Amino acid sequence: MSEHRKLYEEVTLSTTPIYDGKIISLQVDEVRLPNGATATREIVKHPGAVAVLALHEGKMIVVEQFRKPLEKSQVEIPAGKLDLGEELLAAARRELVEETGYSAGSMRLISSFYTSPGFANEMLHLYVAEQLTPGATNPDEDEFIECWSITLEEAKALIANGRISDAKTITAVYAWQVYQLTGAF
Amino acid sequence: MSEHRKLYEEVTLSTTPIYDGKIISLQVDEVRLPNGATATREIVKHPGAVAVLALHEGKMIVVEQFRKPLEKSQVEIPAGKLDLGEELLAAARRELVEETGYSAGSMRLISSFYTSPGFANEMLHLYVAEQLTPGATNPDEDEFIECWSITLEEAKALIANGRISDAKTITAVYAWQVYQLTGAF
Repeated sequence: MSEHRKLYEEVTLSTTPIYDGKIISLQVDEVRLPNGATATREIVKHPGAVAVLALHEGKMIVVEQFRKPLEKSQVEIPAGKLDLGEELLAAARRELVEETGYSAGSMRLISSFYTSPGFANEMLHLYVAEQLTPGATNPDEDEFIECWSITLEEAKALIANGRISDAKTITAVYAWQVYQLTGAF
Repeated sequence: MSEHRKLYEEVTLSTTPIYDGKIISLQVDEVRLPNGATATREIVKHPGAVAVLALHEGKMIVVEQFRKPLEKSQVEIPAGKLDLGEELLAAARRELVEETGYSAGSMRLISSFYTSPGFANEMLHLYVAEQLTPGATNPDEDEFIECWSITLEEAKALIANGRISDAKTITAVYAWQVYQLTGAF
């Protein structure tokens, strides 16, 4: 495949910065395609994020918060963007405590994935947290979050009725089901 | 939860359009938080997309293409953005034929999910296609794609080595495993 990957590469001809924000930045690249033609690529840059499938007494910890891009509140697993220079595992532990109060005796990486590879470089690192101990929450000052826990059946019902509707949480629910069925992710 | 959802709503105070592109647009909203403070929200608008878990002779159809935001080639399930006014099922059938040549006797929705609800409104609709018939591909003029098929074990190996690394494909692989284990998604 390596020759193929080189063959299909898109070569950057120019980069136009459009916006540099608090969380994301946007640039537009002009690229040369494998057939010699040119095309534009709209690219969102994001620092990356962590998310946590936190399992406690046979249930999964979820948080509900308002998501402005969707103009509605959604039920999700705890997650947040990486702070500058922050180590992944430390970020996962920090987000879990901040949003839910739980600290984890065991925290393992399940997988890392790009959320929208067509237009963004955001990579999300999905952890599973077990051996949880409850404690006080500490959300960011602009975060308003409610936290509770649900069974796999309740998670499937929330997916079916649309209250859970984001990629990382749906991935986590499938991963949890596979873990229940096979003992591995 | 309905009172909670209203309580936590972020009210738009102003919207500043930043960019209106070929695939995405970007705006920055100033919002009033539940505690009366204000905050900014960077919001990418996207028309939505479809993706297809296409199953043929016990294998999953994958495509490999260069992803400019990642500066590398990745293995993914067939997918693409919705055309203006296009019906979801029609879009799923179109993308599958364009990128792989296969037409499907059966095409069912598995789930619909937001890819990055923190900063984007992109919703991806994941279908499962079965009873496949091969045919000629017809990619977009700026798409350079290679297509083949892999077993579940091969998919897990490609996830482990990072050649599969996007949310929709990892979700599809977990969904496929659950389908194999339980007969349902």
